[in-house]
Amino acid sequence: MDLSQYSLVYNSLSFGIATFGAATAFFWLNRSQVDSRYRTAITISGIVTLVAFYHYFRMFESLGSAFEVKGAKVSETGVPFNDAYRYVDWLLTVPLLVTELILVMGLSAAETRSRVVSLGGAAVLMILLGYPGEVATDSGTRWLWWALSMVPFLYIVYTLYTGLGESISRQPEAAKGLIELARNVTIVSWCFYPIVFILPMIGIAAAGSINPYVQVGYTISDIIAKAGYGVLIYQIAVAKSAAHVDHAVAA
Amino acid sequence: MDLSQYSLVYNSLSFGIATFGAATAFFWLNRSQVDSRYRTAITISGIVTLVAFYHYFRMFESLGSAFEVKGAKVSETGVPFNDAYRYVDWLLTVPLLVTELILVMGLSAAETRSRVVSLGGAAVLMILLGYPGEVATDSGTRWLWWALSMVPFLYIVYTLYTGLGESISRQPEAAKGLIELARNVTIVSWCFYPIVFILPMIGIAAAGSINPYVQVGYTISDIIAKAGYGVLIYQIAVAKSAAHVDHAVAA
Repeated sequence: MDLSQYSLVYNSLSFGIATFGAATAFFWLNRSQVDSRYRTAITISGIVTLVAFYHYFRMFESLGSAFEVKGAKVSETGVPFNDAYRYVDWLLTVPLLVTELILVMGLSAAETRSRVVSLGGAAVLMILLGYPGEVATDSGTRWLWWALSMVPFLYIVYTLYTGLGESISRQPEAAKGLIELARNVTIVSWCFYPIVFILPMIGIAAAGSINPYVQVGYTISDIIAKAGYGVLIYQIAVAKSAAHVDHAVAA
Repeated sequence: MDLSQYSLVYNSLSFGIATFGAATAFFWLNRSQVDSRYRTAITISGIVTLVAFYHYFRMFESLGSAFEVKGAKVSETGVPFNDAYRYVDWLLTVPLLVTELILVMGLSAAETRSRVVSLGGAAVLMILLGYPGEVATDSGTRWLWWALSMVPFLYIVYTLYTGLGESISRQPEAAKGLIELARNVTIVSWCFYPIVFILPMIGIAAAGSINPYVQVGYTISDIIAKAGYGVLIYQIAVAKSAAHVDHAVAA
């Protein structure tokens, strides 16, 4: 990596720390602005960004140990950059992101539980299957685990479109559009990950100890899928809380 | 840099850390003093100062790594000072500053959303266009990006004066003057940035790895535009909350 690539990774990780810290403060402070039945979804939005804040802090520190900068020269110190932080982060946060969306829909307790178990379980499986490919250096192994990881990924996308689509039609009018948007943001932002994953396999970014384009790509995806998505969940909760109040006043 | 210039930058960054930490505590502790419809604006005021607190802390640490002081002698260590922290900070905080002003006006949900998107988007564009100029060393490149960055800047100023001016006339009497003041503080304090930016281009401050006048200029601008402005937003929220109470008592 040259200095400009190193600086790009360095500053994007720092941007992640600041964004996730800011998002956590927002969710937890403004949790009281929504009806109590949607507060668990907002609590979880803040937990997701706090976990991401922690892991971005660790990655920033890990980058600082792995490289030494003198003037315009960037050299490796020999201490490895710990890329596993991303997967440990996803293992915790991805099932929680699915849970946020299900909780803010306010389904019955039984439907909530069954959807959290099936979609959350598929999310865990998707991350576990992606990791052996991420740490592999040869393209064949990367493609194998990528393909295996795509199975639960496609199951999640399919379920979000069909199963959840049916539940969306039962939502209050004010929240319907926002929930559809949240579902589509989930699908589109999640699609970035398998695309970023294959960048080194199609020669756009060289495979190596640390790939600046992969790092920046994952960082942008994380910010949209966690902080941006959480703001959307918050807006759904605000819209649904207002719908309840209107309903109570009208009744 | 000689010792007095180094100390000036060092102490102004530390002053920034203390001010932004104090401002964050003020906004979040006193958030409960305003009506619930203005609390999101106060939450965001505190998020802006927390993000600035983080970046001033990072810049302070970066300055310490970039220079070594022995007696009256200041020498560079070879580790570069990371000036990008300012731009990463602005990328996050400037759209949020615009959002604060729009939220405290209490416009309709649709008008709020469209104004946040257009003014926030212009703010992001303004910061992104400024950065290539900031890191350039020759005056021609600096002027080019400065001029490009001034396009969204002027759009924001124009919109604050005309579009928002019309909405201000609909505000309650007690808050009208304060909102006008907040809008004018936004415009005047934001004008400092393009002026500080051109200091090295007009020979007032030498371009170099770190420019003490630019650093102190940006720090003063940040304190006015973030902490000072946030206090103004808080006062508007207090005045509007009192106007609601008066209205409720009179009804």
